[in-house]
Amino acid sequence: MRNQDIEKLLSGADTVVPETEFRERIASGPLRVKLGLDPTAPAVTLGWAVVLRKLRQFQELGHTAVLIVGDFTAQVGDPSGKSDTRVRLSASEVRGYAESVLEQFSRVLLPEPLEIRYNSEWLGALAMADVLELTSKVTVAQMLEREDFRTRFDANRPISAMEFMYPLLQGYDSVVVEADVELGGSDQLWNNMMGRVLMERYGKQGQMVLTMPLLVGTDGAQKMSQSLGNYIGITDDPADMFGKIMSIPDHLMPSYFELLTDLPPAEWSDRVVSDPAQAKRRLAREIVGFFHDASAAGEAETAFDRVFREGRIPDDVPEIELTAEDPVYLPALMSEAGLTDSNSEARRLLAQGAVKVDGNRVADESIPRSELVGRTLQVGKRRFVALR
Amino acid sequence: MRNQDIEKLLSGADTVVPETEFRERIASGPLRVKLGLDPTAPAVTLGWAVVLRKLRQFQELGHTAVLIVGDFTAQVGDPSGKSDTRVRLSASEVRGYAESVLEQFSRVLLPEPLEIRYNSEWLGALAMADVLELTSKVTVAQMLEREDFRTRFDANRPISAMEFMYPLLQGYDSVVVEADVELGGSDQLWNNMMGRVLMERYGKQGQMVLTMPLLVGTDGAQKMSQSLGNYIGITDDPADMFGKIMSIPDHLMPSYFELLTDLPPAEWSDRVVSDPAQAKRRLAREIVGFFHDASAAGEAETAFDRVFREGRIPDDVPEIELTAEDPVYLPALMSEAGLTDSNSEARRLLAQGAVKVDGNRVADESIPRSELVGRTLQVGKRRFVALR
Repeated sequence: MRNQDIEKLLSGADTVVPETEFRERIASGPLRVKLGLDPTAPAVTLGWAVVLRKLRQFQELGHTAVLIVGDFTAQVGDPSGKSDTRVRLSASEVRGYAESVLEQFSRVLLPEPLEIRYNSEWLGALAMADVLELTSKVTVAQMLEREDFRTRFDANRPISAMEFMYPLLQGYDSVVVEADVELGGSDQLWNNMMGRVLMERYGKQGQMVLTMPLLVGTDGAQKMSQSLGNYIGITDDPADMFGKIMSIPDHLMPSYFELLTDLPPAEWSDRVVSDPAQAKRRLAREIVGFFHDASAAGEAETAFDRVFREGRIPDDVPEIELTAEDPVYLPALMSEAGLTDSNSEARRLLAQGAVKVDGNRVADESIPRSELVGRTLQVGKRRFVALR
Repeated sequence: MRNQDIEKLLSGADTVVPETEFRERIASGPLRVKLGLDPTAPAVTLGWAVVLRKLRQFQELGHTAVLIVGDFTAQVGDPSGKSDTRVRLSASEVRGYAESVLEQFSRVLLPEPLEIRYNSEWLGALAMADVLELTSKVTVAQMLEREDFRTRFDANRPISAMEFMYPLLQGYDSVVVEADVELGGSDQLWNNMMGRVLMERYGKQGQMVLTMPLLVGTDGAQKMSQSLGNYIGITDDPADMFGKIMSIPDHLMPSYFELLTDLPPAEWSDRVVSDPAQAKRRLAREIVGFFHDASAAGEAETAFDRVFREGRIPDDVPEIELTAEDPVYLPALMSEAGLTDSNSEARRLLAQGAVKVDGNRVADESIPRSELVGRTLQVGKRRFVALR
């Protein structure tokens, strides 16, 4: 492998452990590059895209992407019921999420070399004797080296003994698929290094670990995540994606350019300071262009200009037919039209002044039918319907 | 149940938790009284007998003895290979030890009410999902409350994550057999309380725990145990058992009287001070009488007097025929005659001056045949053969 290819694989990485070993093994032949995914939610965010783009770079150089679908743990959930974030899912829900996630991954990854494995295949088959062997490979002190465990332990906050099991299971995945490298976000460094330790304890060559920086969400403060709502989905439609990228704080631009585009720093590093608005527009075009295509990006930009710069209502607004109901109960209308997810969200947006009819703010939940027919209902900055 | 019966069950106990609940539940009907045993060695010591005698008291009052044979963990062993004391045993070895131990238990316990369960029945059937549920029931901090874990943790000595599993499995046994009480030595208090915690987490009524004091071994210092060699086995022949009891330090007599005989303190508490030799003789007769019978105890005492007080060679010494070999290699003779376990033990005893021919110490390993024929070979204080 050429030196410049190795440098490309290392570029943007947060950590590569151990780096010398990585340079040697990557040069000596095709590797198996593992990435685990938890099928517990349907969307894939731009945060994921950071790691997926890196995995694709490996594929482009002939290395095999090994996707591990964590269907076993998703089905098991957290039996303690203490965690709100991890619930027990049915087998069909998990399959559904897995299919959705894999379909979205395929928008970034190459169709080959690619291997997809479901970890229920081996974790579901583990017997108690295997579990005892697995747990014999590590010490309690090693587990407590993980920062969040240590912090909670020192603060006398509970750590379920079960939580010790998850990193072991994730590491066991690496033992089974014989990973050479495991990719992940930088918050996965410890877990992935546990995989290296376990592989060695099982008499195999330990995997190397490459982590990518965590993408900060549209709020400019926290890691992009579905549960925080500060995310951009890789299947968001072009206009939505364009608009959301235009809404990120200026200080995030360098990391987005570096982690989500192929543009060399020379093309954006000065511009983000001298003309942040234009730089952000370029960023949005690049990202939308990657996940859709250049013409979709162009159209999204045009639509964006019309709405935000010119204050006009976009073309191609979907139409909906009002029923005979009079007055019209707006929350029901908005949620049925898909402008909001629920009546309660609609009521909240009305109360916040985020709802307009032909550009004029409305606050009442019930409006005479005559004041709506033939007008445009707008929710937030980017959601419109024409009322007939 | 009569109050005096409850007091009898509580007598001699180290700890009863919780005592008020115990008094209530024991009075309300027959209970299931669990005792776990690890079939990893063939002998049952007088230390075990302390707990078995307590279990028999429960049986005599109509409660069911539930013996849990830990065949699962004995077969699994310690996969880390770090511990010398716990080795992986084959299924047939475990069955063999279990049969031997149960046969010896039957010398103390009543044939009913008695239930014998092998924990491979349920532990062998646990799947990974069950293990995760089990581990979700406790926290890491709870596990580290166990004194030996805490001590090692604080001293930075390793605790395998697997070691956390064993108390959980032992507690899971209680969940499955729905124990009302678990018996054990006082060193089992924490493990048995973990069983109570787990039963409650699984929505069952938690077991109560009754522990007995640990019997000190013949060395007068450490817990009686097979691995320390300071033990008296309940199947030792009467003469051996009598002799070993006569060898215990005087200060152990009160605990032996209390834990291994039914004699009320009035019968021995003054005597152990005023005439310890007679008191110990009484103790030995009682214990040998329990595990064999009164006449065996009487014969053992007579033989003891002959050998130790009168310095004479006992009657009924087994005879062995010398081969034509000349000179005779004593270590081989001794080990073949069963006086020692090996040639090397025989050589060591010769070097220590523990071997006599017709009462005269010998040190040479090879002795002319003519100096042995028709004489008595003695090893230590109690092993004799007549040489023909």
